[in-house]
Amino acid sequence: MSERLVVIGGDATGMAAASQARRLKGPDELEIIAFERGRHTSYSACGIPYWVGGDVAGPEDLVARTPEEHRARDIDLRTGTEVTELDVEGRRVRARELESGGEYWTSYDKLVIATGAAPLRPDLPGIDAPGVHGVQTLDDGERLLATLTRARGKRAVVVGAGYIGVEMAEALIRRGYDVTVVNHAPQPMTTLDADMGALVDEAMRGMGITMVNGTAVTALGTGPDGHVNAVRTDEAEYPADVVVLGLGVRPQTDLARAAGLPLGPSGGLLTDLAMRVRGHEEIYAGGDCVEVLDLLAGRTRHIALGTHANKHGQVIGSNIGGGYATFPGVVGTAVSKVCELEIGRTGLRERDAAAAGYQCVSVTIESTSRAGYYPDAAPMTVKMIAERVTGRLLGTQIVGREGAGKRVDIAAVALTAGMTVEQMTALDLGYAPPFSPVWDPVLVAARKAVKAVRAAG
Amino acid sequence: MSERLVVIGGDATGMAAASQARRLKGPDELEIIAFERGRHTSYSACGIPYWVGGDVAGPEDLVARTPEEHRARDIDLRTGTEVTELDVEGRRVRARELESGGEYWTSYDKLVIATGAAPLRPDLPGIDAPGVHGVQTLDDGERLLATLTRARGKRAVVVGAGYIGVEMAEALIRRGYDVTVVNHAPQPMTTLDADMGALVDEAMRGMGITMVNGTAVTALGTGPDGHVNAVRTDEAEYPADVVVLGLGVRPQTDLARAAGLPLGPSGGLLTDLAMRVRGHEEIYAGGDCVEVLDLLAGRTRHIALGTHANKHGQVIGSNIGGGYATFPGVVGTAVSKVCELEIGRTGLRERDAAAAGYQCVSVTIESTSRAGYYPDAAPMTVKMIAERVTGRLLGTQIVGREGAGKRVDIAAVALTAGMTVEQMTALDLGYAPPFSPVWDPVLVAARKAVKAVRAAG
Repeated sequence: MSERLVVIGGDATGMAAASQARRLKGPDELEIIAFERGRHTSYSACGIPYWVGGDVAGPEDLVARTPEEHRARDIDLRTGTEVTELDVEGRRVRARELESGGEYWTSYDKLVIATGAAPLRPDLPGIDAPGVHGVQTLDDGERLLATLTRARGKRAVVVGAGYIGVEMAEALIRRGYDVTVVNHAPQPMTTLDADMGALVDEAMRGMGITMVNGTAVTALGTGPDGHVNAVRTDEAEYPADVVVLGLGVRPQTDLARAAGLPLGPSGGLLTDLAMRVRGHEEIYAGGDCVEVLDLLAGRTRHIALGTHANKHGQVIGSNIGGGYATFPGVVGTAVSKVCELEIGRTGLRERDAAAAGYQCVSVTIESTSRAGYYPDAAPMTVKMIAERVTGRLLGTQIVGREGAGKRVDIAAVALTAGMTVEQMTALDLGYAPPFSPVWDPVLVAARKAVKAVRAAG
Repeated sequence: MSERLVVIGGDATGMAAASQARRLKGPDELEIIAFERGRHTSYSACGIPYWVGGDVAGPEDLVARTPEEHRARDIDLRTGTEVTELDVEGRRVRARELESGGEYWTSYDKLVIATGAAPLRPDLPGIDAPGVHGVQTLDDGERLLATLTRARGKRAVVVGAGYIGVEMAEALIRRGYDVTVVNHAPQPMTTLDADMGALVDEAMRGMGITMVNGTAVTALGTGPDGHVNAVRTDEAEYPADVVVLGLGVRPQTDLARAAGLPLGPSGGLLTDLAMRVRGHEEIYAGGDCVEVLDLLAGRTRHIALGTHANKHGQVIGSNIGGGYATFPGVVGTAVSKVCELEIGRTGLRERDAAAAGYQCVSVTIESTSRAGYYPDAAPMTVKMIAERVTGRLLGTQIVGREGAGKRVDIAAVALTAGMTVEQMTALDLGYAPPFSPVWDPVLVAARKAVKAVRAAG
């Protein structure tokens, strides 16, 4: 008796789940049908800024596995087909072929919901004008590049200064644009504490980017041809030949919501550790459409990140394939790059820690990426947050140049292990002059944090 | 009543201990006398290869704190003065002023032994000829540079292919020398398993270095002027205008041995966790003259590394100053660089694991430093060793280009925390295309190790 697995969404989570399930179970045991609205599968949306910036030649480089490759692995992949309804009771989904408009129901024994996230698109005058672009899908990337190629002028405005905003600012700088970033928050990168975000702000200004912080966009102006030509705020107007929206994303869970599946405070699906939707043993969900457990804050949150999406797919596929795997949660690690600036963060910010009920101390130190005497030793600022009394590490943020970003992994592993900053001071980290000062910057921060914990009592 | 602290050895451990003790106790509470045989204090011997290679301008750049700076901090530092005898019973040391030959006894309440390590210098014909150089001290570095500056010719032979050997090979290449490395072991970097050492060998040959492995040096030839002119093995003779010895070091513990202090199997002093010499509450020891606890092998070993030496000094100074600190041991992390090649290792090699009584599985994977589509994504080989049955991580070795070396820190923290490879697969590591593929190479290795552990049963 063959079972049928239906997958909704053909990107990282959906196709990783399908592929892993197929690896464990052949077509005679498990039929796999995957529905994907777009034309592409298994691509790296995170790579779009580098494609736009010219570092990656074409969209095909961002595709890990094409529809044809999936089909060759006995996955019945139906692109250009949107799932419009989920009947949980009847264990079936309704699909619509976008081109023909034809609709049909397909039943399932197991279901994977991997519908991803949708970019936030504020309801502003002019938001739908030509020249205003999101960068969530490969198709978005193609449309943006078409606008850039038409080259009306070289003034770009990026709205938002989170990961996508800063990465797109870099991409546009690399393409020779004058870049203005209009940012609602007082600093870029609100995933950092304000003091660390201020370092990013300073560095971006140093790259020639015009930073307009603490300012909301009120409208997008358009020219006589209807194309965008300005970004307006309450105080000013910024001329724009192209506008990129980098306002973050929200879980795309309208289908799940309509079906009555459980959603968390951010609107993401809630799952158990095996990535099954809570209360529904036969429905799995993962990737940008779910909330993940924040192991430090003890609550779920929405974090759209390709690395989690791929892990989710792996876990889901293993479990559907008869194996066993869990996704225990995250500590909130993220790295980003704006030109030469590297930004790493993991764990809780000060305000997260307070909101979660922790009392904490925080310290900030300056160090270098290599021994001070070694060529190209680059300055690096490390902020470390630890729990009062226990000294348990709660978070780490690093802003610097080469060697700063991935250093945050040291803290990510320490957070996962529940280490105290005192334990961290004894960590046996790699040392040689081209790689680190004799005290790694993370150790310097841990030492200072130990003193702060003791002083706070 | 003031106590007196006597420190033997004015390099990393000794002066870090003195400085930290001074920070905690003023001169009225604690008198500090430090004896140093040479002229320099607190310098980075690890930086010598980069000074020789021309990356660091001069020896002064390698000095973290000069004798004058220490003296300004109320440390009675006596350079050019060697301690020749230690009277444990009488709590005193005999010092000899090298210039005047004058000798005197000095009593102590607390003693720090920080006598470092001495380079291995095999008893071979010609070993003392001009042009044959060790690279352990700043004075060694100065003598080597003097030979290089006299520039008799551009043929260099490096004897030994451990860290110092490979770093000196790079330094000499950078100075335009034809470099031959003659190495007793079958591969360079015996701190790696043979399969990973073979990758280093291949890369060094690719840099134009002549590698002669599995070959012992039998003699050093000299010319009519007495200067070295060749390195001889049983099979061949390699012309040499300069010879650099990179054969590793041994703990410099003749003084301690004569005083009857406890030494381990490598000849290093044995201490407790507070870095007190075992059985002697008033005598501390640290740095390259002690053995450290290998937390994975459950035994002590000698590892000469500046980062440990500095930590030891910090711990010793804190304890002498009335604070509290311990050095719990090491997991054996080390990183190294030969031209563009980066080498990281932590934990046990396969043979260490077997010798310690572990049964293990090991896996090797190929990945890249960045997303495969991102420019300059460099190949990286990761080997991971895990305990059978439990799946506990036992060791990780990484050989690659930029981004390979310090990645080993992820595994170093995981080893310290006692993580299993299964736990590691869920690690929340930093991901963005310029920093990592969506599965970090360490995660890819952990996933493969999980499969191997399960298959081994």
